[in-house]
Formats: sequence, structure tokens, C-alpha cells
Amino acid sequence: MALYLLTDFGHQDYYVGALKGVIKSICPKVEIIDLTHEVRKFDVKHGAFLLWQSLKWLEKNSIIVGVVDPGVGTSRDPVMIRSGHFTFVGPDNGLFWPAIQSIGSYEAYKIDLRSTGLAERRTGTFDGRDVFAPIAAMLACGKSIDELGFEKRSLEILDLWRIRAEGRKIVGEVRNIDRFGNIVTNIPWGYVRFENAVVRVKDSYGRARVSPNYEYKGLLLIRGSSDLLEISITKGSAAELLNADLNDEISLEVIE
Amino acid sequence: MALYLLTDFGHQDYYVGALKGVIKSICPKVEIIDLTHEVRKFDVKHGAFLLWQSLKWLEKNSIIVGVVDPGVGTSRDPVMIRSGHFTFVGPDNGLFWPAIQSIGSYEAYKIDLRSTGLAERRTGTFDGRDVFAPIAAMLACGKSIDELGFEKRSLEILDLWRIRAEGRKIVGEVRNIDRFGNIVTNIPWGYVRFENAVVRVKDSYGRARVSPNYEYKGLLLIRGSSDLLEISITKGSAAELLNADLNDEISLEVIE
Amino acid sequence: MALYLLTDFGHQDYYVGALKGVIKSICPKVEIIDLTHEVRKFDVKHGAFLLWQSLKWLEKNSIIVGVVDPGVGTSRDPVMIRSGHFTFVGPDNGLFWPAIQSIGSYEAYKIDLRSTGLAERRTGTFDGRDVFAPIAAMLACGKSIDELGFEKRSLEILDLWRIRAEGRKIVGEVRNIDRFGNIVTNIPWGYVRFENAVVRVKDSYGRARVSPNYEYKGLLLIRGSSDLLEISITKGSAAELLNADLNDEISLEVIE
Repeated sequence: MALYLLTDFGHQDYYVGALKGVIKSICPKVEIIDLTHEVRKFDVKHGAFLLWQSLKWLEKNSIIVGVVDPGVGTSRDPVMIRSGHFTFVGPDNGLFWPAIQSIGSYEAYKIDLRSTGLAERRTGTFDGRDVFAPIAAMLACGKSIDELGFEKRSLEILDLWRIRAEGRKIVGEVRNIDRFGNIVTNIPWGYVRFENAVVRVKDSYGRARVSPNYEYKGLLLIRGSSDLLEISITKGSAAELLNADLNDEISLEVIE
Repeated sequence: MALYLLTDFGHQDYYVGALKGVIKSICPKVEIIDLTHEVRKFDVKHGAFLLWQSLKWLEKNSIIVGVVDPGVGTSRDPVMIRSGHFTFVGPDNGLFWPAIQSIGSYEAYKIDLRSTGLAERRTGTFDGRDVFAPIAAMLACGKSIDELGFEKRSLEILDLWRIRAEGRKIVGEVRNIDRFGNIVTNIPWGYVRFENAVVRVKDSYGRARVSPNYEYKGLLLIRGSSDLLEISITKGSAAELLNADLNDEISLEVIE
Repeated sequence: MALYLLTDFGHQDYYVGALKGVIKSICPKVEIIDLTHEVRKFDVKHGAFLLWQSLKWLEKNSIIVGVVDPGVGTSRDPVMIRSGHFTFVGPDNGLFWPAIQSIGSYEAYKIDLRSTGLAERRTGTFDGRDVFAPIAAMLACGKSIDELGFEKRSLEILDLWRIRAEGRKIVGEVRNIDRFGNIVTNIPWGYVRFENAVVRVKDSYGRARVSPNYEYKGLLLIRGSSDLLEISITKGSAAELLNADLNDEISLEVIE
């Protein structure tokens, strides 16, 4: 069993160090593994997508702490969710929804701040350190989920998969821009049953084609590592060329 | 027991990898945890502040290797410091002082390069790899601190906490700018006994107010996660707006 | 035994998380250590140099997964290489060559995708996750190298060490630009038997001198931590001043 961390904390502050210290203080034996701390800040959709992408590759029986939380201090509930072989700990703001949805069923619990003694140490601006890390560590060292919270009926929903068809056009959204400048869309690869299309993001557009190799120099429609359509350029940045940003609408108009 | 690393090495070089390899070569069983490697380069004050912030959250009986060292190759001593439940290893340039000061008492040792065999492998440009990592690994695997060095009477002092009051003005310093653009000052939250102030950094200034929620769109005075005053803007960068940099003087003039 | 990772994946995507998850799923007990994920994207020479620099400091009996692979999906072989106390896993594109060359002898194996069951899960765009991580994990948990592949006679060669002398000039290449703006060359420090030289990179040049200390304010010729010539400026960026980039030709003309 390992404990995975996914946050928008970046690496230049003491935030990640504090999470790890708190976890190891409560449960010294647990192994901590960074999924990523470079979720775009405050972007719950971005975090939810990266978690969904990772999930299938994680070892079973893991605990996942996710903290991307524009509303720290607001009224969203701190939750623990058991789903499949995983336990998720973090804010109930949709961050875990796409991952859970891909598993199917779940049991959710609202963290009981009072009986766990966490109400007192909570500062209100850093729930990752004050609530989620301690709870995850308690779970890792053997506390049962219903000792730490109350069952909860429903969770915040987050839909990353909205796409629509308009005649010869498919309209989806930009879910990620990876380090290589590839635009990862939410359009399943199975929808790509053509060879050529005009790709459009806001005012930018370009002709793209499905290509079996990387010799073509223009925009490429490729099957990404999560079976979604990605827009790519060999050794270049498709995102820069199309001036694409996370959560932008992206359309493909078939020209074949 | 874990071994924590705090450096200004960044992630794009082989430096961090070399530290970890050296440590695991000498003491395979020790667990290595990154606090941060993104201390601003050469900025001992920044490193000292991040370490001070983290310390309270780290597990007891840990070893902390800190390397932020503009003077590699100069005459500062390589040291081991025992303070509270922690052992610090690094250069004696003030980096550990605020953390130690917050604990209270300490015992310091100058590393004995000769008897430990480290004098020979020391290249003079990479003490992290050649001196501090091996010493920390030896400590982690059971060597006692007085086998590895000589007692040392005094340490370099570094004062992060200088603030002054001038009439209706409090003047402090910028200690950190976090990923979210928050300006972390060295002014204790307890000093904020007013609702409105003009915040000034060099030639920039703006009206700020204490706000219980995040609905206000202007500059906010907030209680940071280390109980220090932070200047913040909801979903924006206060640091950019005020053009603030690390170690800048920052003042608050009460206008209430 | 630990398993070290060196890639050009960066930290902002799910790629590194997927590698770690896959490894821990197959071999939960193995310890994973990041060497670096900030190799310049697609730059095999840069990755090969960082690996060569790190190697000497890594613990014996380690497995090293290296993925810098502009040709994912092309015909380079997926390989395992045993050399000295190390086992390397990755693409056969030269990435491991300088490290292996520094050790001396090696035995190489082409990964057998069919008998290992990896052919089916291979998507063609993410061999790190689909091939190299699983193979490394199998090796870490006890599979023998000849169960997983076939012996292979030769490896791709990559030469990082080409330098030439032209009268009073030595011409080499820029191998790294570190976080501190130091230019790391491929010129052995032993070649520096003079005090002053003009350093030239493309159209930029500057007078540099060997200096025993850091008080000199101009360009410095220094002995780097890997015994190679580095060009440096005290508290400044030599790379910016000379507008130097990775793999640029760099020359020193002796003016003493």
C-alpha cells in the first residue's frame, strides 16, 4: 500500500514538505509517492483529469490525497471516498468524481473534524496539512473509515466529458496541455473516423490529419496514451500554434 | 526516521540525484524525503524561512540536510547541529538558525573532514555531494555525532524577524512569494488589530483590508498558515500587483 | 537496491505518476528514486550526459529506467543492459551509451514483448509506461534478464566527448546549462593549462580566466564537479551572457 499525492501546490514552497512531514509523523511506515504537484492552480477540472488518467496505472489498495481547492475555507465538505480498490481523501468539490465515475460505485464519508481532534488544529487556510494529510495517515496506519467520519449520501459531480456533434463538426474541450505541447482533448479516439479536419480553438485554426507516422510536419490527430484524441506537431508545440489553453472549447470540422 | 532534503538545486540537473545516490550508497535503508529543491538560488534567507515553516510539521528524530550556499569553497564551516528532536547537516551560514532558534537550545559540531575520510573526496564545488550527504547518511546508519566532528561553540546568526513600528506604520520584510502569488511577510498576525491599511512595497502600493471571506476583489490581509500576515488577492497574484520580490521591505499604514 | 528514473517527462503531467504506479503495482517493495524528469524534451544527448554525471554516485545493484525518446513508435529496440553493478532499461537510442562506456563492458538484451505479455498492452505512444516500467519492476522483483529478452550484439553509440584542437584553440560542445547558469562543457579540466582565454559560442564571446576564488567579476573558467571545464560568473548566468544553448559548439582561444 502506498499513499499518492496530487495537488496544485507546486514545488517551491513548504506546502508539499508539510504534507509529507505530517503524514510520516502520524504513520512513519507508509510510503509516499508524488503523482503531481503541478496541477494548474485552483483548476479542479485539470486535477480531476490528471487523476482520472493516472488511476488505471496505480497499485490497488492505495490511498490518494488530492488537494486542488479554490474554496478552502468555504463550505465544501472534507471527505473520504472508498471506490474500487482505492480510498480518496480531499475536498468534495468534484476533484475525485471522474475517477470514481470510471470505477462505478462508491461509498462516501464526511470527515468528522470533532471526534478526530482535527477541528482544533484546523487553521482554515491549509486543509491539506490540517485535515487531509492527517486523515490519510490515520487510514494508512489502520484506522477504519467509519471511525473517522459519517456516511454521506451524495458527492459533487464534475463532468469532464461533455462533447457535442453539429453536422460535420465535433465540439469538445481541452483537458490538458502536456509538457510536449500536445493538446489532450476529451474526444474519444473512437470518434475519429476520418482522415482530415480543421481544428479550431477560439480564433485560431489549422488543418490537421491522422497520420500513422511522425514524418508529416503539420498538425496531427493522434491517439493519445489514454485513448483520447490529441493534437500534436512533431517536435513542436500544437498548443502554442493554436494558442490553446486548458478548458478551451475545441472543434474538429471534417473536410474529407 | 527519515532524512529530509532542502536545497536550491532545482530539478533539472544531476545534483539532487547525486545527493540521493550518495546517501543510499552509504545507508541503503534510510528513507529520503524532498522538502523542496526550489529555494531561490543562493538565497539563504529564503531557505531558512522555508525550513522554519516546515519544521513544526516534520516527524521527530529526523535528519535534515540543508544546502543553500553562495559561499561554497569559502571559509564557512560544515556543521552538524542537534536541536530538539532534529539533526541538521549543512553549511554554517545561518540557514538553520531560525529553525534552531524556534526550538531553543542546540549542540553544534564542526564536521571533521580528515578523520571521516571526506577531505580526500571533497572537490570544493559540491559540498552537498562530497560532505553533507555522506555525513547525513553516516548519522542515519548509526554513527554518533561526536565521532564525526568536534564540538563548536557558536553558530552564524540569521535574523528573519526584524520589524519596526513607526507611528501608524508597521515595516517588515517579504519572506516568501508562494505559487499562488501570496506575499508572506514576517509580521506576526497578532499585530493586525485594524481593518484597513495601505500596503507599500518599493514604489507600489495598494489599499488592503482584512476580510473574513474571499468575496472581496481587492488586496486582502490574511492570516497565513504559519500565523504570519500574508497579502493576497482572490484568484490573482498580489506579488505581481505590488511588484514584490523576496527580502523586499514591506509596510502597512493603518488608515482605519 | 533502488530503482532510479531519468526522463524528459517534466512534473506537470500524469506521466511520472503512471510510471511509478505501474512499477509499484508489479513490485510493491521496490524503492523508486527520481534522478531527474527535467531532461530537455527529446534531447537524448542531454539525458545521456546527466545520466553519465549521476552514475558514479549511485548505489550499486540499482536499476535505472531512462526514457528520452524522440522516436517513440519508431524502430529503435527496447533494451535491457547489464553493465558493472547496474541494469539499464529503456530505448536503444544512445541514451545509455556514455554511462556504459564509462564502465567498460556490457551485456545487452532486446526486450521480448511477446513472451512477457507486453505486446498487447503497448499503445505505441508511451513505451515508458507500457514497456520500460513493467520490465524494470519485473527485474526488481526477481525475474532474470534472460527470461525477459534475447541477447543483442550491438548498441546505438552516442559520442558526447568530441573535442578538437586547432592551434591555440580548443573546440568542444555545451553539454549542460545548470540552474545556476553555469555552462558545462565536454572539455576535460586537464586541458586547461593556461590562465586566460577568449570563450566563444556562436556570435557571442568574452574574455575568461581561471580564478582560484569567486571575487573576480568576469567570466570564470572553473573545474566542475564532474572534472569538466565549466564557464561561470559569480552570482550571474554565464549561459545568458554568452547566449549559449545545449549542444552548441564552444571554443576557447588561449590568449596568455
